[in-house]
Amino acid sequence: PTSLVETGQNRVIDASLTLIRERAKLKGELVRLIGGAKATTALLGVPLGHNSSFLEGPALAPPHVREAIWCGSTNSTTEEGKELKDPRVLSDVGDIPVQEIREMGVDDDRLMKVVSESVKLVMEEEPLRPLVIGGDHSISYPVVRAVSEKLGGPVDILHLDAHPDIYDRFEGNYYSHASSFARIMEGGYARRLLQVGIRSINKEGREQGKRFGVEQYEMRTFSKDRQMLENLKLGEGVKGVYISIDVDCLDPGFAHGVSHFEPGGLSFRDVLNILHNLQGDLVGADVVEYNPQRDTADDMTAMVAAKFVRELAAKMSK
Amino acid sequence: PTSLVETGQNRVIDASLTLIRERAKLKGELVRLIGGAKATTALLGVPLGHNSSFLEGPALAPPHVREAIWCGSTNSTTEEGKELKDPRVLSDVGDIPVQEIREMGVDDDRLMKVVSESVKLVMEEEPLRPLVIGGDHSISYPVVRAVSEKLGGPVDILHLDAHPDIYDRFEGNYYSHASSFARIMEGGYARRLLQVGIRSINKEGREQGKRFGVEQYEMRTFSKDRQMLENLKLGEGVKGVYISIDVDCLDPGFAHGVSHFEPGGLSFRDVLNILHNLQGDLVGADVVEYNPQRDTADDMTAMVAAKFVRELAAKMSK
Amino acid sequence: PTSLVETGQNRVIDASLTLIRERAKLKGELVRLIGGAKATTALLGVPLGHNSSFLEGPALAPPHVREAIWCGSTNSTTEEGKELKDPRVLSDVGDIPVQEIREMGVDDDRLMKVVSESVKLVMEEEPLRPLVIGGDHSISYPVVRAVSEKLGGPVDILHLDAHPDIYDRFEGNYYSHASSFARIMEGGYARRLLQVGIRSINKEGREQGKRFGVEQYEMRTFSKDRQMLENLKLGEGVKGVYISIDVDCLDPGFAHGVSHFEPGGLSFRDVLNILHNLQGDLVGADVVEYNPQRDTADDMTAMVAAKFVRELAAKMSK
Amino acid sequence: PTSLVETGQNRVIDASLTLIRERAKLKGELVRLIGGAKATTALLGVPLGHNSSFLEGPALAPPHVREAIWCGSTNSTTEEGKELKDPRVLSDVGDIPVQEIREMGVDDDRLMKVVSESVKLVMEEEPLRPLVIGGDHSISYPVVRAVSEKLGGPVDILHLDAHPDIYDRFEGNYYSHASSFARIMEGGYARRLLQVGIRSINKEGREQGKRFGVEQYEMRTFSKDRQMLENLKLGEGVKGVYISIDVDCLDPGFAHGVSHFEPGGLSFRDVLNILHNLQGDLVGADVVEYNPQRDTADDMTAMVAAKFVRELAAKMSK
Amino acid sequence: PTSLVETGQNRVIDASLTLIRERAKLKGELVRLIGGAKATTALLGVPLGHNSSFLEGPALAPPHVREAIWCGSTNSTTEEGKELKDPRVLSDVGDIPVQEIREMGVDDDRLMKVVSESVKLVMEEEPLRPLVIGGDHSISYPVVRAVSEKLGGPVDILHLDAHPDIYDRFEGNYYSHASSFARIMEGGYARRLLQVGIRSINKEGREQGKRFGVEQYEMRTFSKDRQMLENLKLGEGVKGVYISIDVDCLDPGFAHGVSHFEPGGLSFRDVLNILHNLQGDLVGADVVEYNPQRDTADDMTAMVAAKFVRELAAKMSK
Amino acid sequence: PTSLVETGQNRVIDASLTLIRERAKLKGELVRLIGGAKATTALLGVPLGHNSSFLEGPALAPPHVREAIWCGSTNSTTEEGKELKDPRVLSDVGDIPVQEIREMGVDDDRLMKVVSESVKLVMEEEPLRPLVIGGDHSISYPVVRAVSEKLGGPVDILHLDAHPDIYDRFEGNYYSHASSFARIMEGGYARRLLQVGIRSINKEGREQGKRFGVEQYEMRTFSKDRQMLENLKLGEGVKGVYISIDVDCLDPGFAHGVSHFEPGGLSFRDVLNILHNLQGDLVGADVVEYNPQRDTADDMTAMVAAKFVRELAAKMSK
Repeated sequence: PTSLVETGQNRVIDASLTLIRERAKLKGELVRLIGGAKATTALLGVPLGHNSSFLEGPALAPPHVREAIWCGSTNSTTEEGKELKDPRVLSDVGDIPVQEIREMGVDDDRLMKVVSESVKLVMEEEPLRPLVIGGDHSISYPVVRAVSEKLGGPVDILHLDAHPDIYDRFEGNYYSHASSFARIMEGGYARRLLQVGIRSINKEGREQGKRFGVEQYEMRTFSKDRQMLENLKLGEGVKGVYISIDVDCLDPGFAHGVSHFEPGGLSFRDVLNILHNLQGDLVGADVVEYNPQRDTADDMTAMVAAKFVRELAAKMSK
Repeated sequence: PTSLVETGQNRVIDASLTLIRERAKLKGELVRLIGGAKATTALLGVPLGHNSSFLEGPALAPPHVREAIWCGSTNSTTEEGKELKDPRVLSDVGDIPVQEIREMGVDDDRLMKVVSESVKLVMEEEPLRPLVIGGDHSISYPVVRAVSEKLGGPVDILHLDAHPDIYDRFEGNYYSHASSFARIMEGGYARRLLQVGIRSINKEGREQGKRFGVEQYEMRTFSKDRQMLENLKLGEGVKGVYISIDVDCLDPGFAHGVSHFEPGGLSFRDVLNILHNLQGDLVGADVVEYNPQRDTADDMTAMVAAKFVRELAAKMSK
Repeated sequence: PTSLVETGQNRVIDASLTLIRERAKLKGELVRLIGGAKATTALLGVPLGHNSSFLEGPALAPPHVREAIWCGSTNSTTEEGKELKDPRVLSDVGDIPVQEIREMGVDDDRLMKVVSESVKLVMEEEPLRPLVIGGDHSISYPVVRAVSEKLGGPVDILHLDAHPDIYDRFEGNYYSHASSFARIMEGGYARRLLQVGIRSINKEGREQGKRFGVEQYEMRTFSKDRQMLENLKLGEGVKGVYISIDVDCLDPGFAHGVSHFEPGGLSFRDVLNILHNLQGDLVGADVVEYNPQRDTADDMTAMVAAKFVRELAAKMSK
Repeated sequence: PTSLVETGQNRVIDASLTLIRERAKLKGELVRLIGGAKATTALLGVPLGHNSSFLEGPALAPPHVREAIWCGSTNSTTEEGKELKDPRVLSDVGDIPVQEIREMGVDDDRLMKVVSESVKLVMEEEPLRPLVIGGDHSISYPVVRAVSEKLGGPVDILHLDAHPDIYDRFEGNYYSHASSFARIMEGGYARRLLQVGIRSINKEGREQGKRFGVEQYEMRTFSKDRQMLENLKLGEGVKGVYISIDVDCLDPGFAHGVSHFEPGGLSFRDVLNILHNLQGDLVGADVVEYNPQRDTADDMTAMVAAKFVRELAAKMSK
Repeated sequence: PTSLVETGQNRVIDASLTLIRERAKLKGELVRLIGGAKATTALLGVPLGHNSSFLEGPALAPPHVREAIWCGSTNSTTEEGKELKDPRVLSDVGDIPVQEIREMGVDDDRLMKVVSESVKLVMEEEPLRPLVIGGDHSISYPVVRAVSEKLGGPVDILHLDAHPDIYDRFEGNYYSHASSFARIMEGGYARRLLQVGIRSINKEGREQGKRFGVEQYEMRTFSKDRQMLENLKLGEGVKGVYISIDVDCLDPGFAHGVSHFEPGGLSFRDVLNILHNLQGDLVGADVVEYNPQRDTADDMTAMVAAKFVRELAAKMSK
Repeated sequence: PTSLVETGQNRVIDASLTLIRERAKLKGELVRLIGGAKATTALLGVPLGHNSSFLEGPALAPPHVREAIWCGSTNSTTEEGKELKDPRVLSDVGDIPVQEIREMGVDDDRLMKVVSESVKLVMEEEPLRPLVIGGDHSISYPVVRAVSEKLGGPVDILHLDAHPDIYDRFEGNYYSHASSFARIMEGGYARRLLQVGIRSINKEGREQGKRFGVEQYEMRTFSKDRQMLENLKLGEGVKGVYISIDVDCLDPGFAHGVSHFEPGGLSFRDVLNILHNLQGDLVGADVVEYNPQRDTADDMTAMVAAKFVRELAAKMSK
């Protein structure tokens, strides 16, 4: 019954994209109606975890992160004073129904196209800019692809992670979460790629870095590089800056809820100092690899992921 | 901008229902194509938790339960030998995007109609029968309403719970998870309502029970009632049997992942003995109130909720 | 400066007893004022843990148990319908400041006299009857001593525990929590002593049982003894019944928050069936050995200890 | 029976104050007897948690913190060599029976007066100086009020916290734990108020700061402010220095046992560097907001709170 | 360097067997010296976990179980009064250095021969009888093989487990922990094989059961089978009885520390009732599949596994 | 039967040493065969925990640490690019069967000689150098003794710890884990002893430090000492450098799995910066005091201990 399955898949994918389009349109109209916003952060959840090499928990993350963003235990102001309850600062477009689409047998090529498509639907609604909640790191490729294609050129990428995620293939998977930045560089979607927090990298990781001209800042030299990293200027001469944060850039002491424990990482404040001082037009971002199944009993790392989202939104919205 | 919001809400609700309709249709067609199934269990997730009186974690349950149903640590055969990988035994229609709909400001009346509507969409696809994964217990009302209206008459309900959930109002909320069975009885959707596992009930709970002629079997007398409860015959002369399982019917020792700890509950085997020996045509069911935020570090109660779903599916599918 | 220390100890002990007396008097007056109560359960916390052979956590229990009794996640009605918010059913006299007294260097003899004294202060206020929240099991001796002396004669004791706690001495400590029932029997404060749930007992435990004529019902024979134990008639011809529940009478599966894990214990429902069917005038009770430091992340065993207190109160108040 | 309740409340409050007075007197006499102490740290527990906006667990803290101060796993010497077993360095006056007083229906005004009264009772016993173990942050107001009134003038306050706690009202509660420093500044009890570790502050928080001339050092600029903060000189020209530590000034990675997870906080060593280098006469201090219900399985944050108490005592005692 | 590796492997295997032989000989001599023992339980640890289909934690079990057997929180008497400190009741032969042997590249055939060889070394020392601590269930095959070969004939086996572990092959592994009882039956080492607690079994599991004439008692019918199972008589006309306990025969509520959560299992007391009432000469036993990495924070399931070992030892020693 | 026990002990000790000798010989031969290695790190597990003053869990550590070194969630390259799968970089000699030896009644003197003996057996196999996985800190004395005796002279020691472990006796135990460095200095096995991370030290700890000329760098002055500590040059003029890492040198936020929580410690990155920049010939090392029973649910601190082992191996092998 391939035809039956195919038509079914098309209709379910259409329905999914319609859901995203309608929500993006409503949020865009609302923000434009209130007026005064040059850029609004639009949350888009991508609950995708099957491209992970170890644990698939990150697929469960988006609803946990949302719940932590608005949970009663913290106020709705960002560190630099932006009010997240203002739809012009933060609007929510909801989740792509990834599980429902995959469960229909849709292959990864097509699924990743749906992800790119959804990001473009958000960007079509001026002044919405996509902030994607993962999901494992494989989603950064389709998201950066969409942002770059939509803006008509490459971006500069600030990538915070314990791993370079730049293998050509990992366990034979083209879309592996450990290869997303190889895909991005091959696609020409990024001019400069700065990787910060790296501390689990092998020969191939360094060679691929050299091959793509990646600026890899390893934790081994962080105390020396800190000064420069807390005064970055990116995006000039390209379409802007894209920031991708893998929660395991932090030392596991600060973030239990991750699949890979890599001791010797950044503190949360290290990351905020880099973010707050970064100069550049933030056109897209993602927060990936939070794994609720490895979190402490009261979802502490959900609050960590949520605060990354809140502070990125403050940076992106203007 | 009420008109803007309203049209936005309508379009998002339509897109949500379309998503459910398409998936139900595909699954129905698939099952009918293979042929030989009189009844197929169709999973429908309702990630709704705002009608809870204490904790809202149950909204996060559906993806955790699905992950546990198919997780590698157990095989795909039910205790009585049914093969869950056969789409004629178990098909998955996905989740209603409740958070996305609520976030648009849609009120509860309309939201509950979307739930009922979705259940009907599933039932329109012979031979699919709805097995709903909650979400808190407030969803049983719209689900039972849909099943009864669709079948054109009342059903007999077997309700396993620590609480009777039959207050007229709780904290003023018409749709409170503690009032769903008052709504059901007022609506005339149930002829007989048997409540088993009850051990947290006050005067109003008992009076409402008398008022609606509910057969309330409290844990205090379970050792006497066991014999009768393990030989139930339900659904004769009405449209069939509906089973609603609140995970907190179990003693907290067997199910940590619940919002309300009520010591002195049923064991998992007590519930299975009742289910396996029940005679009657199972036309609908739900498994509600699993709360991932209260579960042990390795999602043990997700496996408990998942096995309830698996054994209900074995009972319902034929 | 012994004199200084002594006078200081006296004055602190007096102040402690005054605090208990004032609270007991107020609660007694309140209950008598409302009228209609023959017996009111009065909670008395004894945060004492230094007589434990393994862990001292039980000293932290009373505030955790109180918080669980009134916590928002459960209603205030007992299984048989008594309303705990009615001061005639349940009144709270507060905690004996054990840590403050011990920290002054007061020895155990004197400390245990303060415990007995406090219980008597409660009993002086008709119709208050003492329900003590432990603390480790060493406190049952001073409590039973006070109840029996106050009523002028022995009581029958139903003692639920994994251990007989009837060593003559344990690690040389006269007041060890493993010797409290030897002290009680030596004192002649109990006619019949029934020990239920026993499953960790050595030769000395059995010999001491024979010596004191204790009816020891071990878990090995519980399925045979159940019938008799669920139809007990106690207290005839003596001053009434005293019930002492060590939370580790339960299987560790139902009660993580205990110092000693003894697999193969009672279920919570087993204990309630014995309690509900017991015929006799309940004149005093205690719930001991809950250890918050061994509890699950969300204080599940605090709810278990709290429900023992609630159901004992329902039994005692009339 | 208002008169009955009133007299009851008076007598219970008197008994409570007597208990504190007697213990303070004994400890004072003991220290004076040994001689040689200009200042002795006196621990006073205030188990109060109902003024919290989110979780009430901090009410359970004092006994957990005490147990951690003396637990066998660490020695009794502070980092700078003071011996905590010397009563002239550290004496314990015990807990104010807050639960017992509140349970009598005593309102917050009166309860906070009892807290102030108790602090004064401690200060009357030269050379005892109050180190209060919370309890939520609402208790800092009555404690600072008492210290300032007793010394006859304002103090300089060093306040370590993720939140400024300086709302005029929070959820309408005059005594909210989020308003204690507005109360303190209105009362004129503080000349300089330095707030360090702030990272969750909204417009009102900043406006109130400006209104009261508060020096607010946010985590955003901590790397720049560190140099100055590790060389503070306070208390000159006023009655001395008061230090208030909210355990959530630390990054949640270092302190799980708190109600509000605010990523990006101080490390324990950051705080000790500030404390050890501070020049000033420490006349009072508090350690608040440790929540045992959110702590790891083996009370790790109790050890964090206990070490704050130990090092503050080393600073205060001379 | 195959020759080098081979000679190395031989010498390491010889050294391992020498270690077991020497310890068994010493223990045997000691017991024979004291005299009066017809059968002494000899503990033998087999830390092997690589034949697991899901998690490999069971390889870490033996030292955790030993620590729990002797931990201070419980006394050293079994439920029926045997004193475990008596070397004639319980002697310990130590662990087979499985990791060291495997790490040398020794294949499974040879490794399993070392296991069988070690068991025979124990049995050579009259009156020692082997009680093996797993390790995953794959070790039951080499252990039963050794017992049966040593005694010169088949035994009757009582096998407590959620799974029948009787696949012909599982994931292609001849020694899979899910195939050990196929290996045993093929080898003719067992006459009767009773499997109790089964609740996760598919078509192949039932067919293989029929093929080998296995008596499979599923949890579905346990309430009916209980009577018969609590009065078993085994081992007549063969070389005796062998008992194999997979800790996951228990409901996960009683045993968190297992790889596979299968709700609806036995209680600990259910298993003890079967063990205590079993009539037969117990010639060997094993306790397998305890997984320390899935246990609660304070190793509760280690105590469960330890008590199985203690009660089996009481049964085996005479 | 002393003679029996003695001969038994001798034979078991011989068998244990034979096991170590055979494995060391095989690994040495293998490495020499491949060629090109001047120094190869050889892992040696010493599962010894009875010399701990508080908890004995560290005896369970070695298998957990090994499992974490090779677990699938991280790659096998060290931060500076060494490939751990190369036997010339890292070879494993297995565990000394400490429990089996102790259980035979062997006293500590003899046991510690077996530890020294085993280390020497490793060092006899050029180019193997010992990296010992503890076990509690008492094992550093026999290991350093063996290294120094084997090399024929003292070494310089870099000791990372919260405690100086230099008491003359602790609780009367000559081999206490709190006295290992007094034993080492008395034995003349170390010229310079640098202790870094110290933050729990009393008068005796400082006096013993002065007496032995120990360079004690306390956390109080770490920000000042960092510069010097990250540029150490050790081992000149003696036999090389020995590094001993007690996992509790880290702040408990980074390492839950330890017996003693001492807030205010080093971060993992602080330690790596010291290690990576240290100049000196590393001739031996140990990683001790990891306690699996205090670790988080998913063995996070096992990964911390494993990464210390991996980075030490990278430093030692050349």
